[in-house]
Amino acid sequence: MNRQMLQQQPEVTVTDSFWRHYMQLVKEEMIPFQWDVLNDRGDIIIESERDDATIPTEKSHVIENFKIAAGLKEGNHYGWLFQDSDLYKWIEAAANTLAIEKDQALITQIEETIALLEAAQEDDGYLSTYYQIDAPQLKFRRLFESHEFYCIGHLIEAAIAYNEATGSDRLLQVADKAIACIEANFGKAEGKIDGTDGHQEIELALVRLYELTGNQRYLDLSAYFLAVRGQNPHFFADQLEENDRLGLKQGSKPFINTVYHQADKPVSEQDTARGHAVRLVYMAQAMAGTGHHKQDEKLVVAAKKIWSNIVQKRMYVTGGIGSTVRGEAFTYDYDLPNDLMYCETCAAIGLLNFSNELLKSETDSKYADIMERVLYNSIISGMALDGKHFFYVNPLEVDPLASAGNPDKSHVKATRPSWFGCACCPPNLARTLPAVGRYAFTQKADEVLLNLFIDSELVAEQEGKAYTIRQNHTFSETGKTLITVEKTSSELLRLGIRIPYWAENPLIIVAGEAAVAEISNGYTYVTVKSESTEIELTYTIAISELEAHPLVKADKGKVALQRGSFLYCMEEQDNGKHLHLLSLTGAIQPRFQSDQILGDIVCLEAEGELQVLEDEWQDKLYRVRQEPQSVPKKLTFIPYYSWGNRSLGEMQVWIDKEAAHV
Amino acid sequence: MNRQMLQQQPEVTVTDSFWRHYMQLVKEEMIPFQWDVLNDRGDIIIESERDDATIPTEKSHVIENFKIAAGLKEGNHYGWLFQDSDLYKWIEAAANTLAIEKDQALITQIEETIALLEAAQEDDGYLSTYYQIDAPQLKFRRLFESHEFYCIGHLIEAAIAYNEATGSDRLLQVADKAIACIEANFGKAEGKIDGTDGHQEIELALVRLYELTGNQRYLDLSAYFLAVRGQNPHFFADQLEENDRLGLKQGSKPFINTVYHQADKPVSEQDTARGHAVRLVYMAQAMAGTGHHKQDEKLVVAAKKIWSNIVQKRMYVTGGIGSTVRGEAFTYDYDLPNDLMYCETCAAIGLLNFSNELLKSETDSKYADIMERVLYNSIISGMALDGKHFFYVNPLEVDPLASAGNPDKSHVKATRPSWFGCACCPPNLARTLPAVGRYAFTQKADEVLLNLFIDSELVAEQEGKAYTIRQNHTFSETGKTLITVEKTSSELLRLGIRIPYWAENPLIIVAGEAAVAEISNGYTYVTVKSESTEIELTYTIAISELEAHPLVKADKGKVALQRGSFLYCMEEQDNGKHLHLLSLTGAIQPRFQSDQILGDIVCLEAEGELQVLEDEWQDKLYRVRQEPQSVPKKLTFIPYYSWGNRSLGEMQVWIDKEAAHV
Repeated sequence: MNRQMLQQQPEVTVTDSFWRHYMQLVKEEMIPFQWDVLNDRGDIIIESERDDATIPTEKSHVIENFKIAAGLKEGNHYGWLFQDSDLYKWIEAAANTLAIEKDQALITQIEETIALLEAAQEDDGYLSTYYQIDAPQLKFRRLFESHEFYCIGHLIEAAIAYNEATGSDRLLQVADKAIACIEANFGKAEGKIDGTDGHQEIELALVRLYELTGNQRYLDLSAYFLAVRGQNPHFFADQLEENDRLGLKQGSKPFINTVYHQADKPVSEQDTARGHAVRLVYMAQAMAGTGHHKQDEKLVVAAKKIWSNIVQKRMYVTGGIGSTVRGEAFTYDYDLPNDLMYCETCAAIGLLNFSNELLKSETDSKYADIMERVLYNSIISGMALDGKHFFYVNPLEVDPLASAGNPDKSHVKATRPSWFGCACCPPNLARTLPAVGRYAFTQKADEVLLNLFIDSELVAEQEGKAYTIRQNHTFSETGKTLITVEKTSSELLRLGIRIPYWAENPLIIVAGEAAVAEISNGYTYVTVKSESTEIELTYTIAISELEAHPLVKADKGKVALQRGSFLYCMEEQDNGKHLHLLSLTGAIQPRFQSDQILGDIVCLEAEGELQVLEDEWQDKLYRVRQEPQSVPKKLTFIPYYSWGNRSLGEMQVWIDKEAAHV
Repeated sequence: MNRQMLQQQPEVTVTDSFWRHYMQLVKEEMIPFQWDVLNDRGDIIIESERDDATIPTEKSHVIENFKIAAGLKEGNHYGWLFQDSDLYKWIEAAANTLAIEKDQALITQIEETIALLEAAQEDDGYLSTYYQIDAPQLKFRRLFESHEFYCIGHLIEAAIAYNEATGSDRLLQVADKAIACIEANFGKAEGKIDGTDGHQEIELALVRLYELTGNQRYLDLSAYFLAVRGQNPHFFADQLEENDRLGLKQGSKPFINTVYHQADKPVSEQDTARGHAVRLVYMAQAMAGTGHHKQDEKLVVAAKKIWSNIVQKRMYVTGGIGSTVRGEAFTYDYDLPNDLMYCETCAAIGLLNFSNELLKSETDSKYADIMERVLYNSIISGMALDGKHFFYVNPLEVDPLASAGNPDKSHVKATRPSWFGCACCPPNLARTLPAVGRYAFTQKADEVLLNLFIDSELVAEQEGKAYTIRQNHTFSETGKTLITVEKTSSELLRLGIRIPYWAENPLIIVAGEAAVAEISNGYTYVTVKSESTEIELTYTIAISELEAHPLVKADKGKVALQRGSFLYCMEEQDNGKHLHLLSLTGAIQPRFQSDQILGDIVCLEAEGELQVLEDEWQDKLYRVRQEPQSVPKKLTFIPYYSWGNRSLGEMQVWIDKEAAHV
């Protein structure tokens, strides 16, 4: 294999106790637990992520599918078409964990798994257990739903992670062979299929593989898949017709919603976030990366328009995206209902990666702001603090009565189940959390950016010159950031330090000298000359009452509280039932607390009011209005990510705020 | 046929111009239009009532189905299983129209239709075109979905109406033969099916047929169907299993939600409104009627509990019921989202009839209050003022952007389509509106109740004594009601006149003498002695700002306006875009207006405020809260039933009301 590294992925070691905790959970809880799930071991309750009788929940069967495809077992495929990706994401998670701490037993487990993949892969490189086992006649012939490329995309990402963690090429060979099979079957040439997969993922994986190897083939293939998408909006439907014409036995021929697949028009002409949220952000990340490397300005501009549409009009304050369960999709500008949304964990992870990709080509802290918002809120809310329970849907408002009693909200779970029939989210978390350091810094040709305030150490090289950057933070009443730079040469190093929008009155001291923190695109720059430099940043951590754009109907007259990176919410456990009857009236104070379940957290406390449920209501449903009666009530807010870890109850992010009367 | 009238249906002639207009529309627009639909004539666009590809929309095919069943044509059944009922409802509507004004051409049309039914009906009385044509092996064997009794219920109601309008027994004979077929196949006896239909309707029709004929058979059959329901919750599923066992070719075997069918437990143990809203109210009406006639207190008590649960906890302020499109169903107490609801027109009609049924056995104006609320708001909003367009779903809040852009709201149409693939609602309106006089009075053994303030004349007999009651109303700034009673004998007549909750300071003058209007259960009683008496009632028509129970989350801090019987709403046409940014701040004034489209209506005008969309927002989605800026804005409200008759736009019932600051 042609290995010519374009850009060394900088090595970042995370030392932050907040994130180390998550990394521990992934290693000690998630990876072994998911391994048992994949192998149909143990007493695991698998839940469907929404109310749909067609979702498989009986077992995982993933390893079994590969064994059958490899000829090691007999039987039929079981589960989703895209379940192979569960295993690939498990490998990526395991590899990312290995990158933190070597573990020979885990390497052996992965190597055995790779051997299984090698055995299951066909001679021409084809690999998709469902089609190999149950429908070989339909290989690459039902791309609207097949997820064949989607799975190979995750295989590629797993192979990259395993290579980065161990230096081994073995899984990269499997991936390359699968890519070669796709190249042999797809393209403009006569006899090839001129189209692409219904679920984007391979494109972004190919960009990453190009960045790892420098092999132009991969970048070209990503560019081709982006270019062919939506060129013929009937492509998916035409395939089904052709199958019929050829007399191939196939399943249903449903109506294909091409907007759902972002395949109704060329991607470079797509400038709003439409359709399935995960697919959209995966595609947009690939557009940004491919456009960047190919210097295709049209692709980059389209990606940026999509990004702006998301963050300016279609994103929840948690960073969650997807306003409806139907199609797990975006809807329209400012449509952000707090109790109906989807806000899938995978979509949040996709938005993190998409933003990170744009940051690589454009230095602007707006991207890091979103990365931080998504990471500290909508992503980690996807996992319980015990590392054993997960959300697929991350709501902004939960009432257990509604989840149980109104089918429009049955997808909104009031507690995290242990595993899902469609298990895309938990393994997506498992692969992302150990790699969180990757988002803390961005290494560019002429500068290094410090994006996220995560205690960590970057060890990198730039044009042969090695340097180390360490960041350490204290987020007590006042925020304090200490950055230490060490270099092996006296060449200048340009370091951009993000000043978050929530850091008020930032003061910077460089090498003992107080300096004015001049901010450019959200970063303050320090040019490090000497071999060792200390930079100290102090600031006030803002506690903000955020309001939403007035066209967000659901949030009118309401505020959401934020302190630093963390968004807050109220839970019934702290505030009693009927959270919607509470309103915020007074000032907000932080309270530093060590909680047995929630850990060391900063709660927010505020004076508020509770509207009284007067006796006079009794059995009335409507009455002539009377002035509402309220009593003072102390309100407690906890970080959003930590909700749902205690007993079952209501949760609410947005709270009524009385307008001042002039 | 054994014809022994239990109780003569009093003859009520409606003279009210408001209702005469609707009756005209039914006669001149709906009946001929639907006839064309039923006969697949003309250029009719048929719309599905919600986003579901399986709903037939191509054509009606109803008459064609009967012709095929009668052997007059060849072909297959097309359309819903329950489509026969479209024709039965059309006959009932036509008959109710005949009762107002004789029309020989229409009689001929009905007689020809009856001839077709006679030809289609099998020798044993069986009549259900789908099963006759396409699945005779499954007759009475898939009751969870077959609607076989549901359709016969509507046949019975059509037969009653035709008999009442013309005196003809001909359609009653068809109905009785169909009932005999059911009696032969169902019951406790060995070899009979011990169960009932998934969709209630026949029970209430049998009660009505018993009331018309005095034939105990009908009442017993209704009582049996109510008693057997939910006794074996597996009944529907067992049928499907048995079909398989017998090797009968049948369709899908879906999971059967017995709560949806109100068949999970005995009906007398059901005390909340659960499942499909139309089925529930149809069943509850039959429970009230059967319980009343059978003196089965348990049934009546259960019916009353269900009624109380609806009106105290699960009914929109319009009288609409059904909080979710999924299962067109009730959800849980106080769950009344204004933009997601179903509020099907048929369910509103069912609630009208259910309330009317309870009023027959218990004199309490609370039933008439609900009848009025439903009739003047959620029922007639189902029909455009041109009589040619209809709502299936009657929302309390509409944003055309949401209907088009968020699939959770795709069932909420922003304009009335001309016809639906599932055409239950428009013909249900067509049969109800000409018969509206039936709800104005209730004739009891010892009293006559005047329930609804509809200009009309009742001509009745009580124990051989004939009397006439005329009511005439003026609803200008002050309300004035004139009631004239004429009797042929000097025997006392006890007349209860409902004093609506919205009639303030009622003054009553009986035969020129001012009297204290003593109110008992919401009625004021006048004992009429002389042969001719005039009663005058004057009152102030309240304009109320209604508020909802604090546990109705969607309505917190909001009010809905009502004047007299009419609930009000705002439309974009009068108030501009973004109705949610408006709030009510000042007093409300009526404005009497003659509008080209809306007709003679009373609008409400009020001082309000519009929250300004500040320029500073630009591309921001969230910001640190600032005090909202508002400008004064004159608000215009129109009667709810009249919305959606002008151009496409937003509509909103509930409006923010600023709390006074003490």
